[in-house]
Amino acid sequence: MTLSALASLTGAEVSSGSDPDFEVQDVAPLDTATKADLTFLDNIRYREAFSRTRAGAAFATSAMARFAPTSLHVLVTDKPYRAYALAAQSFYPLPDAPPQSVIAPSAFVDSTAMIGRSCVIGPGAVIAEGVRIGDQCHIGPGVSIGRNVEMGPGCIVEANASLSHCLIGAHVRIYPGVRIGQDGFGFAIDVSGNVKVPQLGRVLIGDSVEIGANSCIDRGAGPDTVVGEGTWIDNLVQIGHNVKIGRGCVIVAQAGVSGSTVLEDFAVLAGQAGIAGHLRIGKGARVAAQSGVMRDVPSGMEVMGSPALPLRQYMRQVASLNRLVRKKDRPDGEGEKDGNTATGNAKD
Amino acid sequence: MTLSALASLTGAEVSSGSDPDFEVQDVAPLDTATKADLTFLDNIRYREAFSRTRAGAAFATSAMARFAPTSLHVLVTDKPYRAYALAAQSFYPLPDAPPQSVIAPSAFVDSTAMIGRSCVIGPGAVIAEGVRIGDQCHIGPGVSIGRNVEMGPGCIVEANASLSHCLIGAHVRIYPGVRIGQDGFGFAIDVSGNVKVPQLGRVLIGDSVEIGANSCIDRGAGPDTVVGEGTWIDNLVQIGHNVKIGRGCVIVAQAGVSGSTVLEDFAVLAGQAGIAGHLRIGKGARVAAQSGVMRDVPSGMEVMGSPALPLRQYMRQVASLNRLVRKKDRPDGEGEKDGNTATGNAKD
Amino acid sequence: MTLSALASLTGAEVSSGSDPDFEVQDVAPLDTATKADLTFLDNIRYREAFSRTRAGAAFATSAMARFAPTSLHVLVTDKPYRAYALAAQSFYPLPDAPPQSVIAPSAFVDSTAMIGRSCVIGPGAVIAEGVRIGDQCHIGPGVSIGRNVEMGPGCIVEANASLSHCLIGAHVRIYPGVRIGQDGFGFAIDVSGNVKVPQLGRVLIGDSVEIGANSCIDRGAGPDTVVGEGTWIDNLVQIGHNVKIGRGCVIVAQAGVSGSTVLEDFAVLAGQAGIAGHLRIGKGARVAAQSGVMRDVPSGMEVMGSPALPLRQYMRQVASLNRLVRKKDRPDGEGEKDGNTATGNAKD
Repeated sequence: MTLSALASLTGAEVSSGSDPDFEVQDVAPLDTATKADLTFLDNIRYREAFSRTRAGAAFATSAMARFAPTSLHVLVTDKPYRAYALAAQSFYPLPDAPPQSVIAPSAFVDSTAMIGRSCVIGPGAVIAEGVRIGDQCHIGPGVSIGRNVEMGPGCIVEANASLSHCLIGAHVRIYPGVRIGQDGFGFAIDVSGNVKVPQLGRVLIGDSVEIGANSCIDRGAGPDTVVGEGTWIDNLVQIGHNVKIGRGCVIVAQAGVSGSTVLEDFAVLAGQAGIAGHLRIGKGARVAAQSGVMRDVPSGMEVMGSPALPLRQYMRQVASLNRLVRKKDRPDGEGEKDGNTATGNAKD
Repeated sequence: MTLSALASLTGAEVSSGSDPDFEVQDVAPLDTATKADLTFLDNIRYREAFSRTRAGAAFATSAMARFAPTSLHVLVTDKPYRAYALAAQSFYPLPDAPPQSVIAPSAFVDSTAMIGRSCVIGPGAVIAEGVRIGDQCHIGPGVSIGRNVEMGPGCIVEANASLSHCLIGAHVRIYPGVRIGQDGFGFAIDVSGNVKVPQLGRVLIGDSVEIGANSCIDRGAGPDTVVGEGTWIDNLVQIGHNVKIGRGCVIVAQAGVSGSTVLEDFAVLAGQAGIAGHLRIGKGARVAAQSGVMRDVPSGMEVMGSPALPLRQYMRQVASLNRLVRKKDRPDGEGEKDGNTATGNAKD
Repeated sequence: MTLSALASLTGAEVSSGSDPDFEVQDVAPLDTATKADLTFLDNIRYREAFSRTRAGAAFATSAMARFAPTSLHVLVTDKPYRAYALAAQSFYPLPDAPPQSVIAPSAFVDSTAMIGRSCVIGPGAVIAEGVRIGDQCHIGPGVSIGRNVEMGPGCIVEANASLSHCLIGAHVRIYPGVRIGQDGFGFAIDVSGNVKVPQLGRVLIGDSVEIGANSCIDRGAGPDTVVGEGTWIDNLVQIGHNVKIGRGCVIVAQAGVSGSTVLEDFAVLAGQAGIAGHLRIGKGARVAAQSGVMRDVPSGMEVMGSPALPLRQYMRQVASLNRLVRKKDRPDGEGEKDGNTATGNAKD
């Protein structure tokens, strides 16, 4: 692929001094790329590796382009990682769908299920009655799809995942071991025996959603649980019943969202964050790793800590605590050897 | 179902002014219920939605009943959510068990396994030698039940769960992807190579336990791991080897209990809480979300924080820290704009 | 097995006064062991149970041996738990591999896959094209092994696990529901739609690794994800793409390691710990339970808290906070009843 082809694919510009006809054969990270490879610089942290890279070409911002080694052909763009993603997709396209659907002999497909064209159904997969699967879907080995589940075209469901009580959009990717549509955690606590509340809702998954390995999304109790278009969910994430997640949200590994909470569009939960139930996390709000959110978060706000505070307030709290420790350590003004380390941490 | 039938089912009373012969056809949440629906008010937070509901009838406490719209028929009870749960169960009963057991052709059932009457064994399920399954059990697709596992009547094991080295009581519900009875994390650390300690115990699960999707319960190392009757476990929970969990406990999603710890009856662990090993969590004790418990918790106590403190002490700590931040912000007594926010947080 | 046989197996010494010809039939915990059982004392916490044990023989350190009841035969060793592990292994050896490989009729094995000698392939297992499995491997029911995966001899893969894009060493044990080799969480965030970055690396697992139930290890984005020889991973652990884990590391349940982070040999992550991306955790470093690591940790250091601090600094912070609470509680020097409790906590 030539630099000019890459430029037109990604919207980047070939830098002056770079050759638009230069060809790359593959993509690779900064440190292992060779002359035939395309790479990228997105994080200033890796600037030095960038200066030393032996790659043939790279995406970088105009500010970073000047750190390129002289032998490197540079494609300038505001979004180097996005450009790299698009280029890498063109080097590694998804495999073609087969002309006709291929159903493994050991798969079980109920006679009332409807399978679209050009699908692959893997060995041991189980497709129950009334299921409808769109064209060009790939259902992996050992997957279980329960009664009346519907799925749009172009979906991938990987090994041993299980789906029930849900409607899945188009181009959704469900990783191995994902659990969608099982009952939520709904019961009335009672010393004479907890009483289960029948869970009656579904899970609605929008288009182009990705759901990471072994993550769980419970069906709604009465209303539906919803995951909006283009939202990305990492591994081992818990989504409780009735939760509504907007478009383009990002939920990192091992985070959890309790029942009936709303995440507005583009909200981000970092790893191991936890959100209490019945809250609203505003549009574009960001929750730091391991934070515990116990109240609504306004749109655009970043929160941190457990319980979570607005970022500035959290930082002041950490700084105050560090000062306090330092003060106690030097009651007579003498200080001690690692007093500076304590301060150092507050700055991070 | 008439109000008087609901009253006798749940122990509620038809309020004066409500019609005992009024009929409801279904259950629904406050905000989407229509004239033919039964709903409930349990959380004062939703009082306003209650005042505006278009439901035909609702369970509520006597204190809340006066906020009902005039058109609403009210069933008065101390436990509205429990009453609603019972009513909903009667509208949505579990499906009838088949008269004779139905075993999918693609299931593998060892010739020495004993399957009770009226069971359903799904496609691809694997039942090993010596297994005993009680009457009216439902074993989902792709479930694996290992050698000599025993299970009482009325159990449901959902898709792709795996069980080994365990005895399961009656009416236990095991959600998709649950792992029960695998080896615990037992080994002697050694720089020349960690040495595995054979895990020899079982997992004993009492009657009416529910275990959420992708949760894990390890077999005991020497003694057994135990989960008492009526305990509810949410998704992605970790229960280590030798743990003893009493009756009626509640363990919310992503919480973890380390090896050899004891949870006495009715203990509650909120989401993402973690309990260190070899501890005792007393009867009815409550551990707040994300808390990390490193010492025994007396019966009835509520603890919070990481490391966890008694609730009152934790709250004082949070308040002190907020005061400290505020004080630093106003060295000359002037204060600053969001000083009140800091205080506001301490009150939450 | 006689005491002298146990001594030569484990390197322990028969204490003076103990009979080298005394025989034990089984292993058991201190509190349930009988005259025919071998037990051990490793934790001073259980010294009293040791003094009362009815076991026939026990491993203990020379310092602890004097607390033994007179009837107990003692094997003295510096590493009682390791010695016990070795002895227990000899009482409970792994089952013999069959003379010839046994492949369940309902398993699917692609015609291009190569299965070693003396393997067991369980019902419903799926082995894709190009897979190579070493001798004496045990593949459980419902396991999915994707295209071109290679696995050394003596591995155990338990029920419903799924493997793809990986090379597995010898004697690796993979627990039920483990997910290895799926795509990592790699995409360029973009409001017009996140753009997936193709994940091209593999997962390399060294010899004698154990990976706990429902844990997830993502394939590398470009480079490989690596888990070194003899590392033990507990249940529900998340390992992100490109992570490099050294030899002999220990990662306890529900911990998570973000993408591109390096754990050097013998690092230990306690339960629910989280490590941010692109960090280096030094050789033998220890991260306490629930800690959140946001910066590199030097070799041998122990860190705690979220964000994590060096242990001594963290302890000072906790102590300062407790003093602050106490001071506020006694503005006039009077103190209050549970002031001592607060101090008590700081000592723990």
